[in-house]
Amino acid sequence: MEKMDYLQQPQAIEAKSFVIIGEIIHDTRPDYRFASPLHEAVIKRVIHTTADFEWLDILHFSPDALDRLCTAIQCGCSLYTDTTMALSGINKTLLAQFGSEVRCYISDPRVVRRAKADGITRSMAAVDLALGDAGEKIFVFGNAPTALFRLLEHKAQVSGVVGVPVGFVGAEESKEALVESGLPAIAARGRKGGSNVAAAIINALLYSLREAQ
Amino acid sequence: MEKMDYLQQPQAIEAKSFVIIGEIIHDTRPDYRFASPLHEAVIKRVIHTTADFEWLDILHFSPDALDRLCTAIQCGCSLYTDTTMALSGINKTLLAQFGSEVRCYISDPRVVRRAKADGITRSMAAVDLALGDAGEKIFVFGNAPTALFRLLEHKAQVSGVVGVPVGFVGAEESKEALVESGLPAIAARGRKGGSNVAAAIINALLYSLREAQ
Repeated sequence: MEKMDYLQQPQAIEAKSFVIIGEIIHDTRPDYRFASPLHEAVIKRVIHTTADFEWLDILHFSPDALDRLCTAIQCGCSLYTDTTMALSGINKTLLAQFGSEVRCYISDPRVVRRAKADGITRSMAAVDLALGDAGEKIFVFGNAPTALFRLLEHKAQVSGVVGVPVGFVGAEESKEALVESGLPAIAARGRKGGSNVAAAIINALLYSLREAQ
Repeated sequence: MEKMDYLQQPQAIEAKSFVIIGEIIHDTRPDYRFASPLHEAVIKRVIHTTADFEWLDILHFSPDALDRLCTAIQCGCSLYTDTTMALSGINKTLLAQFGSEVRCYISDPRVVRRAKADGITRSMAAVDLALGDAGEKIFVFGNAPTALFRLLEHKAQVSGVVGVPVGFVGAEESKEALVESGLPAIAARGRKGGSNVAAAIINALLYSLREAQ
């Protein structure tokens, strides 16, 4: 096997990536200021996940979002994702170390049945089912505007919402409704988002909480 | 529950999304031409997944890539992803209808053991393990440049590669090496990519094959 020359240590690759991201921000946006180390950690990890520096300007944080999300994770809560992809991307080992967990009800038989019976999306039925669970809740949406709209219809007082559905129909409107809801929220303005972005935001919080221990 | 006004039919949402994407391309890039309906399906689905129109210019298709990938899927092959996120995003029901399947070896105990023993990434060890399987293979990488470099080191004649690792260290270089390898490949130029993009490319092929049936 002919060996090629490339960095092979995952931690070294990640560390170097964040240095490069910092340099690019410094060079291209010298006046850009992060509001806090946690704000910086979230934005840089989303850029790490997307290689898209538009994320410097897209993410909206409600004033209490980072505090509320971190406290809920540390006190033990359930995260609910709208896709198995977002669930798959979240560091579940680390989440469990804080006494929290993540669930995705999109393929739950009760959700499939209810969506069919009521003529609603499975994403909406999954929100309804999750809200029946006991305990503190964080909702993590990277895909389905209908899930986010449904959550807002319930006017439930949840611990936090990561609202970054991507798309062209309803996505932007759902995120603006989240921003205006007053819920503790991290939301993407405009069309961009995705399950990868949703997972990256949660992972950034988890890694920052681990470092702070 | 106070009802909000939004489209709730998944098929209608998707159809409307693709119409909007087509309109935006028409308005902003009137001279842009797709090489074929399949080429168009892939690019538009990646834009649908990312809301990022840079994908009009980023994706490289080797001359035989679309034919080889579609034939392999239709004849029954194994897809290997570098992340559970990419695996999670691929339509496995539809894939199975064509007699194909998708696997991710990243957490296989043999991979974890081998990576530790040899001081390589688990992504590399997963490629080594996959190449020992019988049958036609497609590799689908959205995250790990080391996986793509490793595959190229083996000089294996696989049925196709979707090479779209995202990132700042090795990602671009690994994709350029793929482009130059002569393998049937869809590759992203530059830093962008991701597990969501990798899954979207495979799903675009699957939906096009289903429509053609």
